[in-house]
Amino acid sequence: MRKIGIQEIEDIATGAALLGAGGGGDPYVGKLVAIGAVKECGEVTLLDPEEVPDDALIVPIAMMGAPTVLAEKAIGGQEYKKLYDMVTQFFGKKIYAFMPIEAGGVNSMLPIAAAARLGLPLVDVDGMGRAFPELQMVTFTIGGLKATPMALTDEKGNSVIFETITNKWTEELARSVTMSCGGSVSVSLFPMNGKQMKEYGVKGIVTRSQKLGEAIRTVKNAENQTPEEHFLQFTEGFRLFKGKISDVLRETRGGFNIGKVVLDGIGDYKGHTAYVEFQNENLAAVVDGKILATTPDLICLVDTETFTPVTTDALKYGKRVMVIGLKCFEMWRTASGIELVGPRYFGIDTDYIPLEERCKGGK
Amino acid sequence: MRKIGIQEIEDIATGAALLGAGGGGDPYVGKLVAIGAVKECGEVTLLDPEEVPDDALIVPIAMMGAPTVLAEKAIGGQEYKKLYDMVTQFFGKKIYAFMPIEAGGVNSMLPIAAAARLGLPLVDVDGMGRAFPELQMVTFTIGGLKATPMALTDEKGNSVIFETITNKWTEELARSVTMSCGGSVSVSLFPMNGKQMKEYGVKGIVTRSQKLGEAIRTVKNAENQTPEEHFLQFTEGFRLFKGKISDVLRETRGGFNIGKVVLDGIGDYKGHTAYVEFQNENLAAVVDGKILATTPDLICLVDTETFTPVTTDALKYGKRVMVIGLKCFEMWRTASGIELVGPRYFGIDTDYIPLEERCKGGK
Repeated sequence: MRKIGIQEIEDIATGAALLGAGGGGDPYVGKLVAIGAVKECGEVTLLDPEEVPDDALIVPIAMMGAPTVLAEKAIGGQEYKKLYDMVTQFFGKKIYAFMPIEAGGVNSMLPIAAAARLGLPLVDVDGMGRAFPELQMVTFTIGGLKATPMALTDEKGNSVIFETITNKWTEELARSVTMSCGGSVSVSLFPMNGKQMKEYGVKGIVTRSQKLGEAIRTVKNAENQTPEEHFLQFTEGFRLFKGKISDVLRETRGGFNIGKVVLDGIGDYKGHTAYVEFQNENLAAVVDGKILATTPDLICLVDTETFTPVTTDALKYGKRVMVIGLKCFEMWRTASGIELVGPRYFGIDTDYIPLEERCKGGK
Repeated sequence: MRKIGIQEIEDIATGAALLGAGGGGDPYVGKLVAIGAVKECGEVTLLDPEEVPDDALIVPIAMMGAPTVLAEKAIGGQEYKKLYDMVTQFFGKKIYAFMPIEAGGVNSMLPIAAAARLGLPLVDVDGMGRAFPELQMVTFTIGGLKATPMALTDEKGNSVIFETITNKWTEELARSVTMSCGGSVSVSLFPMNGKQMKEYGVKGIVTRSQKLGEAIRTVKNAENQTPEEHFLQFTEGFRLFKGKISDVLRETRGGFNIGKVVLDGIGDYKGHTAYVEFQNENLAAVVDGKILATTPDLICLVDTETFTPVTTDALKYGKRVMVIGLKCFEMWRTASGIELVGPRYFGIDTDYIPLEERCKGGK
């Protein structure tokens, strides 16, 4: 158990944005929301998963929608209380703690804001260890947990509770409502007990985000290493490419931010080209026509100077970025994990091959 | 208080399909559902509104979606129980009786099926006295009642509860979910108490439907009158046109059945042309370029031989129909009624002028 204050939030936002793998929302927007709540209501208690009783009701809080829209819509302060009331009324039981469902610039932050505003602790766990575009794409789906009852509310005060026959149906129906509400909403989903959280969750993810964020903040302080070497070391990242953004193809379709970023090589990569496809999150990195990484491994773009993460909604012509690959949480590499979030689900015609195998013998 | 059995259902279905003004669903589909339930579970008790206590919880039951789709989708038997459970859980109070929300071939029938299956009475009242395409278009909206909590369930077992800031938002969000569920779903909405039901409801609508249906069934038994004269007399209808369908323009858009039927005059109307525009329900009847009737007055198409109603989803090239106008429920003719369901809401650029004034001096 420890406290999360403003410096921790700054670092968590940066680190979580890296783990967001292009998605999960703008960390700047996210941290404003979390810092605002903590300034107003006090620091948040972060619980280690093992500190949570088996029968406690644990509720993930997140924003649903296209990150592009999310940055443009106001985030009110009443949503968490509304979600809290909906869930407690449904179960007739108090919520013990909130948790994030994914790592990402916004979705790591909203649960902190919710915890601050409701005076509840936050658990150091999530359901992805990264971000994914669809709500059924969590380790809890592999564990057989239901996404519903799912509560949804918009900043205007509309609210909806879903109970569905599959998590894919939850995604389908909640996505429709999200779009009708203007493209982004606040939700609670996968309500679970402490036992389930400990069995299937990605433990320690908040702390990992914070450490990554702290390392990025201090990346230039490394001794006997260039900042890039230091960055690759502490992230355990595989360098896939470095280039200047020469094109961004992007559209908001079906409530998702879908597209492709094209890169012209710089430095060691001069004369080479690469592209990264995304659906909210980066899905595949292709260098000179060869796939170097696919979902569920993490593909992250970072600024070549500051090493701060560049989310898919912040891609801009001319920006210089490094593309790195990070190994995903081990549960994603199982058969059910690959079925749920592997490349073929997203229409990418390749088997999943672990990042470290694809990169063997490369730069 | 009286009982509704199979003969009553047959007549109610026909009469309600006439009052459906082109919408409200196929009476054949509707009566199969109601008759099936009554055969299995027994006759339904119909209550006069005045027999209902002021504090009783009264819940309208309906199908939402494009009638075209509705006829093609299976209607399960579990939906009513699910809606019942959702509403009673929400209010922590038992439902006293069901009621229809609109008159129509399907939407007058489903509440009968629900009442039979749940062993509850039905109230002789609705919220339109006709059918309208959008869910906020009920007298209860004029009375300031909320459409929510609204419960929605599909035949697969997905379910959703909405609470919204306005009835227009309920329509917006529920329509999205309806489309995602395949185009038609079962709903309960505008839950109300007995006092509200008596204050704003269209009383006696089930009985009126039944009488109209009975008269259509026996239309040829009239003495000293042609069947058509008899039909126009008992419906108090204004004859607007008779013609053969020469074209039907139709599309399912935004969850609605939208289009226009074009008629070439026959009999007295030979050499004249007319068209009727619709959005699930008929919106405007135009003869030789002159508007003869608009929403909220009822525009109904009936077979020229049998006088059975022809719904918008049953319009076919070559079919001979008579177009009649019926005066709408008086509350629709108030300023708030016209704002809610008048011609301009539907994009028809004319003021509302009562049917009987538009038809003055006509045939």
